[in-house]
Amino acid sequence: MYVVKSPLSDAELKTVSGALQGALVDLVDLSLVAKQVHWNVVGPRFRSVHLQLDEVVDTARLHSDTVAERASTLGVPPDGRAATVAGTSGIDAVPEGWIKDVDAVAILVDALAAVITQMRDRVVATGEADPVSQDIFIGITADLEKHHWMFQAENGG
Amino acid sequence: MYVVKSPLSDAELKTVSGALQGALVDLVDLSLVAKQVHWNVVGPRFRSVHLQLDEVVDTARLHSDTVAERASTLGVPPDGRAATVAGTSGIDAVPEGWIKDVDAVAILVDALAAVITQMRDRVVATGEADPVSQDIFIGITADLEKHHWMFQAENGG
Amino acid sequence: MYVVKSPLSDAELKTVSGALQGALVDLVDLSLVAKQVHWNVVGPRFRSVHLQLDEVVDTARLHSDTVAERASTLGVPPDGRAATVAGTSGIDAVPEGWIKDVDAVAILVDALAAVITQMRDRVVATGEADPVSQDIFIGITADLEKHHWMFQAENGG
Amino acid sequence: MYVVKSPLSDAELKTVSGALQGALVDLVDLSLVAKQVHWNVVGPRFRSVHLQLDEVVDTARLHSDTVAERASTLGVPPDGRAATVAGTSGIDAVPEGWIKDVDAVAILVDALAAVITQMRDRVVATGEADPVSQDIFIGITADLEKHHWMFQAENGG
Amino acid sequence: MYVVKSPLSDAELKTVSGALQGALVDLVDLSLVAKQVHWNVVGPRFRSVHLQLDEVVDTARLHSDTVAERASTLGVPPDGRAATVAGTSGIDAVPEGWIKDVDAVAILVDALAAVITQMRDRVVATGEADPVSQDIFIGITADLEKHHWMFQAENGG
Amino acid sequence: MYVVKSPLSDAELKTVSGALQGALVDLVDLSLVAKQVHWNVVGPRFRSVHLQLDEVVDTARLHSDTVAERASTLGVPPDGRAATVAGTSGIDAVPEGWIKDVDAVAILVDALAAVITQMRDRVVATGEADPVSQDIFIGITADLEKHHWMFQAENGG
Amino acid sequence: MYVVKSPLSDAELKTVSGALQGALVDLVDLSLVAKQVHWNVVGPRFRSVHLQLDEVVDTARLHSDTVAERASTLGVPPDGRAATVAGTSGIDAVPEGWIKDVDAVAILVDALAAVITQMRDRVVATGEADPVSQDIFIGITADLEKHHWMFQAENGG
Amino acid sequence: MYVVKSPLSDAELKTVSGALQGALVDLVDLSLVAKQVHWNVVGPRFRSVHLQLDEVVDTARLHSDTVAERASTLGVPPDGRAATVAGTSGIDAVPEGWIKDVDAVAILVDALAAVITQMRDRVVATGEADPVSQDIFIGITADLEKHHWMFQAENGG
Amino acid sequence: MYVVKSPLSDAELKTVSGALQGALVDLVDLSLVAKQVHWNVVGPRFRSVHLQLDEVVDTARLHSDTVAERASTLGVPPDGRAATVAGTSGIDAVPEGWIKDVDAVAILVDALAAVITQMRDRVVATGEADPVSQDIFIGITADLEKHHWMFQAENGG
Amino acid sequence: MYVVKSPLSDAELKTVSGALQGALVDLVDLSLVAKQVHWNVVGPRFRSVHLQLDEVVDTARLHSDTVAERASTLGVPPDGRAATVAGTSGIDAVPEGWIKDVDAVAILVDALAAVITQMRDRVVATGEADPVSQDIFIGITADLEKHHWMFQAENGG
Amino acid sequence: MYVVKSPLSDAELKTVSGALQGALVDLVDLSLVAKQVHWNVVGPRFRSVHLQLDEVVDTARLHSDTVAERASTLGVPPDGRAATVAGTSGIDAVPEGWIKDVDAVAILVDALAAVITQMRDRVVATGEADPVSQDIFIGITADLEKHHWMFQAENGG
Amino acid sequence: MYVVKSPLSDAELKTVSGALQGALVDLVDLSLVAKQVHWNVVGPRFRSVHLQLDEVVDTARLHSDTVAERASTLGVPPDGRAATVAGTSGIDAVPEGWIKDVDAVAILVDALAAVITQMRDRVVATGEADPVSQDIFIGITADLEKHHWMFQAENGG
Repeated sequence: MYVVKSPLSDAELKTVSGALQGALVDLVDLSLVAKQVHWNVVGPRFRSVHLQLDEVVDTARLHSDTVAERASTLGVPPDGRAATVAGTSGIDAVPEGWIKDVDAVAILVDALAAVITQMRDRVVATGEADPVSQDIFIGITADLEKHHWMFQAENGG
Repeated sequence: MYVVKSPLSDAELKTVSGALQGALVDLVDLSLVAKQVHWNVVGPRFRSVHLQLDEVVDTARLHSDTVAERASTLGVPPDGRAATVAGTSGIDAVPEGWIKDVDAVAILVDALAAVITQMRDRVVATGEADPVSQDIFIGITADLEKHHWMFQAENGG
Repeated sequence: MYVVKSPLSDAELKTVSGALQGALVDLVDLSLVAKQVHWNVVGPRFRSVHLQLDEVVDTARLHSDTVAERASTLGVPPDGRAATVAGTSGIDAVPEGWIKDVDAVAILVDALAAVITQMRDRVVATGEADPVSQDIFIGITADLEKHHWMFQAENGG
Repeated sequence: MYVVKSPLSDAELKTVSGALQGALVDLVDLSLVAKQVHWNVVGPRFRSVHLQLDEVVDTARLHSDTVAERASTLGVPPDGRAATVAGTSGIDAVPEGWIKDVDAVAILVDALAAVITQMRDRVVATGEADPVSQDIFIGITADLEKHHWMFQAENGG
Repeated sequence: MYVVKSPLSDAELKTVSGALQGALVDLVDLSLVAKQVHWNVVGPRFRSVHLQLDEVVDTARLHSDTVAERASTLGVPPDGRAATVAGTSGIDAVPEGWIKDVDAVAILVDALAAVITQMRDRVVATGEADPVSQDIFIGITADLEKHHWMFQAENGG
Repeated sequence: MYVVKSPLSDAELKTVSGALQGALVDLVDLSLVAKQVHWNVVGPRFRSVHLQLDEVVDTARLHSDTVAERASTLGVPPDGRAATVAGTSGIDAVPEGWIKDVDAVAILVDALAAVITQMRDRVVATGEADPVSQDIFIGITADLEKHHWMFQAENGG
Repeated sequence: MYVVKSPLSDAELKTVSGALQGALVDLVDLSLVAKQVHWNVVGPRFRSVHLQLDEVVDTARLHSDTVAERASTLGVPPDGRAATVAGTSGIDAVPEGWIKDVDAVAILVDALAAVITQMRDRVVATGEADPVSQDIFIGITADLEKHHWMFQAENGG
Repeated sequence: MYVVKSPLSDAELKTVSGALQGALVDLVDLSLVAKQVHWNVVGPRFRSVHLQLDEVVDTARLHSDTVAERASTLGVPPDGRAATVAGTSGIDAVPEGWIKDVDAVAILVDALAAVITQMRDRVVATGEADPVSQDIFIGITADLEKHHWMFQAENGG
Repeated sequence: MYVVKSPLSDAELKTVSGALQGALVDLVDLSLVAKQVHWNVVGPRFRSVHLQLDEVVDTARLHSDTVAERASTLGVPPDGRAATVAGTSGIDAVPEGWIKDVDAVAILVDALAAVITQMRDRVVATGEADPVSQDIFIGITADLEKHHWMFQAENGG
Repeated sequence: MYVVKSPLSDAELKTVSGALQGALVDLVDLSLVAKQVHWNVVGPRFRSVHLQLDEVVDTARLHSDTVAERASTLGVPPDGRAATVAGTSGIDAVPEGWIKDVDAVAILVDALAAVITQMRDRVVATGEADPVSQDIFIGITADLEKHHWMFQAENGG
Repeated sequence: MYVVKSPLSDAELKTVSGALQGALVDLVDLSLVAKQVHWNVVGPRFRSVHLQLDEVVDTARLHSDTVAERASTLGVPPDGRAATVAGTSGIDAVPEGWIKDVDAVAILVDALAAVITQMRDRVVATGEADPVSQDIFIGITADLEKHHWMFQAENGG
Repeated sequence: MYVVKSPLSDAELKTVSGALQGALVDLVDLSLVAKQVHWNVVGPRFRSVHLQLDEVVDTARLHSDTVAERASTLGVPPDGRAATVAGTSGIDAVPEGWIKDVDAVAILVDALAAVITQMRDRVVATGEADPVSQDIFIGITADLEKHHWMFQAENGG
């Protein structure tokens, strides 16, 4: 049986692994949501939103890999399977079919907000138990909040 | 209401859009399955299998985008949401937790076989209705079959 | 006198060379039309449309070269001269002077639709006579239809 | 109605915009002529001439874009449509069909000479009215004259 | 004391160094103005304008370096300090706070127009005294006018 | 014993594997023939022909790898050994020693013609049995015919 | 009216936005100071100092952008206008005219020390309120302190 | 005498410089250990382990440079000389001669574990005194723990 | 008749040209052998061996070109035709069909050993007659011996 | 006999070709002078000056090619042979043997000054006859004067 | 037990392996010495020496790898462990603490001289026994002597 | 006075430095000769010869730098000044004016032959005294002889 000697205590590990698993599901779902909108958006701002969404996809894919491998590193098997994502994601479901560009932007503002709120909780929760994981969550939060600003700015004015 | 004037008849469109939607779900799930194994594989061949799986992920992501955008091109909104993938994928669920390298290879051989079988049916089904989509399915099949060979060869000998 | 021993029969060659010559003219004209709009577009979506049009130009130039060299390969001299393009193109003339961004998108939707219709006919016409040329026409159609979707999506919503 | 506040007087603008429009047509046609010969050349120097012609095409396409955007910059809509090019180009029509390599070089020597003569006139004509446009014409002339030398050198000796 | 033997007479040097110092201040301020708007723009065209502004920043930074080093080359110390820029720039101050995308474009049209007018005067003023510096001003003018067209085109239609 | 579960029936597999093995031998030999001429060509067109031959080598090596791996993918071990190539290639032997540039071009025209004829037969033979392999043969034929044109064009005029 | 829903409380936001605005002004001024010395430095170490200063400029420009966009992300419009920089920077004014290389190094040592002191205060001030912004300040401090060491090392020995 | 004005108090500096010097020695030795195994490993997994070890070398070299320059930045001369490394490293000596691949992986698991334990202590020890150095230690720990996972995973299963 | 004035005497030339021709055949065959195994290898180490073999192919192709062009340089036409390679290679024939990974490594160890022995003889034989060719053989030997070590190390332990 | 039809009159051509030939000799010699100092410089600033000189070499080589090809373009054969350079260069001979770094800088200041003076005369002389050549001379002068500043700045302070 | 069949006799192998082991230790120590000085150098030439030292590090690391893998290739396990390097290096120990730039250069001149002397002996010693290893030592000597010149030139004048 | 402690005896140094100085002059002149022909060649093979000559220039420039720096490394100041090159080169003067392509090739064949003969003598002369320099001469000879073959092959057939 494969067991990793973790540098963390059991209590610390429980806290951190919960945070990592939650972040993994949110980030995988964010990548699927952003792709779904990328393919279905219509309207005058199609091209701009279409391109911008792929940058969200890149961010989400990059960080989901970091988070999952951090879990493995601590000796906890990550779970990023479709059913797990569909069942436990913190992001609301996207409606099926074409999406107007204004709605597309609103969907992303909401999806990003949902993930950011959770991610900030993870920053607070893991600081004591594992500053390495905390540092990863801080970096993810910074990137997500920047995307969040940009989509908000597009709906402002 | 957004409507695309499709170059295909309604009957043709029905055939082709079904094939595209099926391929999209299979390919998105293949990317999630390959990532899941990439993170959870253990054993002497860890590094080799770990790297090889990311090449499957690249293939699956690239082609899922092509297939989804082909659907949009024909005027049919693609559906690559987590729940849709979890509910309609043609690939068997991966077990949770660590996966021995021998089992990892076997899981991929099976997953690829499942997708290939469907993809060859799509090649046959769409040749009349839309040779452009058929050409896409042929290219996907070629890539998947090459991955399939490599994982089989690793378990052979 | 320069004569190429063609692998095709005279009847096959006639069919295929007609299709290639027609595609060449359409694609050269498409590159000129897209550049014309690239230079003359005005309006709030200027930058987005301006950039998008150069991607159409790249597609049209790339494929016009492939098509012309395919004709030469089969022993038929291609004709992409300005007068030939002006006289036999399947695309409607662009109006002179500044073009509003909404109109720019509509012009491209129409121009692409005109070329796609012809290109699909060429796919059907050449399958028997020369599968190599047919494969080229299928690839061109795929690219043009993708551009067509994007411009339609911009006017939808 | 879209109007640009030009830094030039009406008289200056008339001079400069005429020069820019003429240069645009010449350069677009040069790119079409060079491609036509690129596809139809035959003879022992085929490969060398074939490659050299694509360098002329690159030069012509690059400068046609600069010239057209300069016109737009000054508030004058450029016209690079196929019919305009076919009707007003300063380059003689290329004969249809295969072209021997010696003839190919001679056609380019003549085409480049025709454009250079006009371009030098444009340098003189615009120096007073708009030194920025003049500087562009000088740069184009330098490049075209270098190509002209190379094709002449190939027929010399 | 550090003194450079200048190839210019004192009178020529006075003319040219004045023009270079003025251009330096305008270009540094243009880079700050474009960045300020880059950060504060809001509205549906956010992303497009946000990206376009960084191209103006690149242009302004590149040319400010060329102009300052040209002054040093002629033996005249350039002055690009914040107070000098704030005190002597030819561009109107940008209002504080968020800026709607339509206003952002208008601010850039005005800022570029102000710098272009001065830059054209510098082209005229320095032709006699130092054609090398004049050539630099011509190149800068060409780039600024192209940006000017693009922002105007976005507000036209 | 290593066995691949092939998606093809035995009859289909026999047809396709014969075509793949034949193509492999032809392409490996083509790469050796082109290298042999690359090293031994002499005459005024030495440099041009010398460079052009390495492009044929690149094409032949690339496609031989694709064809061999396609055979492995279908569960049939490919055979590209020297003796097999020497014994079963469809290309005539190149004479030993120096080769004049005119003769070098003629040798390549013949070698390419021999391979193309076979490859077109393979396109026809495999369309039913395995459209994936057929698609590979079509792509190879396109590349070889383009090389064929260029060498013919060099001897024409 | 454009309003961002900030994840921070009003009190937290006040602390963090003050720190970000202060950092923005310091970093923009540092980039102007480093450029000013880059252009005006003279003496035997000219080339070495000239090159080293552009690395400071790169650091300052990169981080000023990060800091300003972080402010926008939190819903606070950043202010990097010339007058604001001239009026509120924490760096002493650079003297006008040529600067000996020894003095250039001393000016940078002082300017960097001034910014570092402030930046360390910002690290302390924001840790509680916003660990994401704190993380940004820590990264900036690390880079500035490395530059500080290098300029000190050059004046040591 | 060269003295750097440190932003830290003497007590803080003592804590931080001890941690930096310890980390420097560990990382230099890790690079030597990994290279030693890279050259001496034998066995079926030779190639995989050989390549993987150079990634550890890259990590160790990169971070040893960062740590040493951070010490210099704080005014403390770092000591990475061979005798110091040999005398004070926290990693057990590698046995001389060939190393079987299984043993090679075990040696790396142990060496990385030894360094990680110390590095986590340094994270805790320096958080108060110098958050910049702490941030560097956190980043190093993350990288080392990822390598640690991978070598453990290879021996698991 | 094409004759090169060689800097070598007839006796020297005979020695050197024999060595070059032998090396050419060995290296071309090594590239074919390595490709054959690359396509046919099966077993747990498939991926590792498959990739490693392509590095041998690259080495063999690169050096075969150098050796053949060295022969041409000395005025001796090289012979790398399939029949010559099949008839005179110093490497034993590879068995047909699938090859287990252990056997694949053993085949390469033997093939490399055979070529290395000959290559070392060539180093000795040509030192007097042509130090330039000797230097080429030394470089080839170094590369082949390094590959030889790696395959041996994989079977050791 | 090879004759180019020049767009210039005989009188114009005489003026321009004299200027081009003079510039060619100066620039070739400048590249040789800078290399000579590059190899022979000694002293504490060795590395800095050594690197800086290769930037002068790059500038001189680039422009000498432009100038020579401009002469060919106008139908005048350029002369850049060693004896011509040695006999007609406008740069003073460099002393043989090692050169102290201070002297190295002084030699370059003088050499650049000599070439700049002539180049400015060429700008004046050719403006009427050939603005294309004049534009080339202006660009060269700008580059040389920038190098001139930098070497002067190194000896100042 | 892992044994490599060496192409060398026992006597030859003893000579060559001694030379390789000695070179390995010297080169690893040279890389540590150069890094130590890289981190501790102070004085006006800090930046220039700091950068130059990393080029020595690159050279030493590159060649130490080549030398160690050559030993493995000949069947002799190399020893590059910290204790071995500290105990048997031919380079004098570097003093601890800051190092003035003049002293830094002198330390490198001496360290390089020590290694070069030994390396030249190795060239002589191995020529008979193994020309491949000799060729490696010649290449290393060339690189080290070039660095030696540059550091000497910096202290000369 | 700058003196390098050479690892060579005085007698050895005299031999080697004479060879290096001779090679330097030959290579600088070869670069000038090849550029002269590059600019002045005319005839049907203009383009091919024109491009090929720049490859000779690259070779000659690269090796002249190596040779000159090797002389400096050994403590002997190299001399590559125009007058020295004009006075002591081993290459015959190129005639002034246009050069037919056939003659251009012949000039290069002769120039390369002259340099090769000398370079082979240098290989012999320096083997005892300095194997490092000898190795450099061997490498140069290999490159020059390859160019020599190619120009001969162009005139053969």
